[in-house]
Amino acid sequence: MTSFLYVCTECKQKFARDTVRYLCPDCGKKYIPGAPLRGVLEVEFDYSEIAKCFTKANPDWELFSAVEKKYYPEYPVGGTHFSKASRLADKLNFKNLWIKFDGLNPSGSLKDRASFLIAAEAKRLGEKKIVAASTGNAASALAAVAAAAGFEAIIFVPESAPIAKLVSIVQYGAKIIPVHGTYDEAFRLSLEYTEKQGGLNRNTAYHPLTIEGKKTVGLEIFAQNNFTVPDAILVPVGDGVIISGVYKAFYDLMSAKITNRMPKLICVQAEKSNAIHNFLQTGKYQNAQDPATVADSISVSAPSNAYMAKRAVEETDGFSILVSDQEILNGQTMLASYAGIFAEPAAAATAAALAKISKQQLLASDQQIVLLVTGHGLKDINAAMKNITIPKAK
Amino acid sequence: MTSFLYVCTECKQKFARDTVRYLCPDCGKKYIPGAPLRGVLEVEFDYSEIAKCFTKANPDWELFSAVEKKYYPEYPVGGTHFSKASRLADKLNFKNLWIKFDGLNPSGSLKDRASFLIAAEAKRLGEKKIVAASTGNAASALAAVAAAAGFEAIIFVPESAPIAKLVSIVQYGAKIIPVHGTYDEAFRLSLEYTEKQGGLNRNTAYHPLTIEGKKTVGLEIFAQNNFTVPDAILVPVGDGVIISGVYKAFYDLMSAKITNRMPKLICVQAEKSNAIHNFLQTGKYQNAQDPATVADSISVSAPSNAYMAKRAVEETDGFSILVSDQEILNGQTMLASYAGIFAEPAAAATAAALAKISKQQLLASDQQIVLLVTGHGLKDINAAMKNITIPKAK
Repeated sequence: MTSFLYVCTECKQKFARDTVRYLCPDCGKKYIPGAPLRGVLEVEFDYSEIAKCFTKANPDWELFSAVEKKYYPEYPVGGTHFSKASRLADKLNFKNLWIKFDGLNPSGSLKDRASFLIAAEAKRLGEKKIVAASTGNAASALAAVAAAAGFEAIIFVPESAPIAKLVSIVQYGAKIIPVHGTYDEAFRLSLEYTEKQGGLNRNTAYHPLTIEGKKTVGLEIFAQNNFTVPDAILVPVGDGVIISGVYKAFYDLMSAKITNRMPKLICVQAEKSNAIHNFLQTGKYQNAQDPATVADSISVSAPSNAYMAKRAVEETDGFSILVSDQEILNGQTMLASYAGIFAEPAAAATAAALAKISKQQLLASDQQIVLLVTGHGLKDINAAMKNITIPKAK
Repeated sequence: MTSFLYVCTECKQKFARDTVRYLCPDCGKKYIPGAPLRGVLEVEFDYSEIAKCFTKANPDWELFSAVEKKYYPEYPVGGTHFSKASRLADKLNFKNLWIKFDGLNPSGSLKDRASFLIAAEAKRLGEKKIVAASTGNAASALAAVAAAAGFEAIIFVPESAPIAKLVSIVQYGAKIIPVHGTYDEAFRLSLEYTEKQGGLNRNTAYHPLTIEGKKTVGLEIFAQNNFTVPDAILVPVGDGVIISGVYKAFYDLMSAKITNRMPKLICVQAEKSNAIHNFLQTGKYQNAQDPATVADSISVSAPSNAYMAKRAVEETDGFSILVSDQEILNGQTMLASYAGIFAEPAAAATAAALAKISKQQLLASDQQIVLLVTGHGLKDINAAMKNITIPKAK
């Protein structure tokens, strides 16, 4: 661990550790339920300390951690596969395509990374209870980590979440509070709950360490890519926290002078859940009106981290792209049948987007491109059945 | 890669590479469909060569591979998490309990390891088509690897296989041939198919490199356990190939003088799919009459590798134990809620067995015990729903 301050992403005020927990005390007051969060905090490390201690020969990734290793739960996350996908590259006319398959985290999604760090923080703080709202993946991730580490987990989740996500949450022994309505409603209810009943709230971006947890996927891509920065990373975007985490990884690496460039971050959204895309296009923020998409994990009306996500794309010279539900389902089958990677729809949206990018020649064919595949296809079998037929025995 | 010979496990005849492909030409003739295989071949390396080249400081695991690295598909397998499970250990009165979670292979099960090596072998041989019979996991593993590496995959699978397994096989683009009846029937049909239509048959134990592929999980446990041998490893047993693979790992390590002892191998079977258990108890082999169990991945009437599995248990001073379907479902919930590991029923059978072992004091409480968790719970959500209730929104 390296010493750090929390910095408000809006007013730039700095706060010492343990003097704030969630949002900036000033800017956070502007937050209205059903809108993006205001006053999200970011971790600013002492980068000179990291620069001094970090070596590529024997990299100590704990230097990039905002929680001491001794609090880490017995639930290993990350270390997921990063591999070249030559057959898919050929199909889409690229030459150097890679996949980071984060569906290989224990609960089946990248969200394990955030839950892991939050559980470590809860242990440090002596909290016994962790509370979250989720479209499903963050919920099962939190439930799993809580089971391994011995926390009570209270989880607000839309009752429309895919059955596999609900079943795993209950199997992990979490207390599940199903919500009529969307993720946004679950988000609001979970904040209310922690305010009244206590516990540590793990809502994404609301707790700044969720971004730090998700950041580790970016650090891993860099390390697995032989300490070089890919040209572009395609990221499925719902509430905007994963893309902010990937941004933060390369920001930290740049700040510690371990690299000198950023990858273009490509924001992939579903046509119906397009608030961040529109924000990037128009500069004016508006909620998505009816965010229902087959890619349930990125189905969000008011993305909690819209402001940081916008910055992540703009400051890396990236862009955003929309894909339809049918394109997402086609992307899922393409990713499975050309790369052997079975991804949930939200994660497969990256492959769908790459097909569009190829057609529109938005990225040069010789660039090194990474698809960040955030969740396993086994998370939602009903969605995966929409595009295929299973033969019957004769 | 180290040079090797194939050795018949029955008559001990030795064969040079490429002079045989599947079973021993003599003993294999005794094989009758619907019974365990006869004349299964084993890979015997030049262990002096491994002993000379292998170092713990910079371990070259390719020395233990029967196929050259240059043929490996772009589909990374293994490197799955190995972690301590203290809460589960406390609950079951053990002190040093570990989990190897091989459900974190890309297609969600340990079977990826065998499919990976068979695909490498197919590439070396110039075969374009790989054929297999499977209860579901080997099938999705083969389908996935074939998609990444560009092989045609032809898969015989009982149509009663869990829907998630069928869906993923089709998503991966394999040709699926659903079979009325059991795994044993699919096994027979797939052998018929390769005999008539060609292609490389990947049936477990029938192709000796399936055992070599699965072996890598044992090598990894050894490496991740700081190059020490655990006291006991619990392995779910259906056709007996995984336990034979784990045995082979430690046999290779002993033969190359990298360690000097074997872990006890504990054979865990479902009450209804108990052929190897009975074989161990009575010394007389008999098919399981009605192998139907909730643990579909270990539901087998005539285990293809019964003879080697028996040897694996006996030569390591291990034992076998049966668990009922209800015990398996309880084991699944226990593993999820005390260790954060959501396992498919067959894999959770190890936790169920450990609960029994604890009660009957069959292993000392201070021994280092490893549960080999072979498949992810997301593989079969219907089974996981049998033991829980999902709350509804009020």
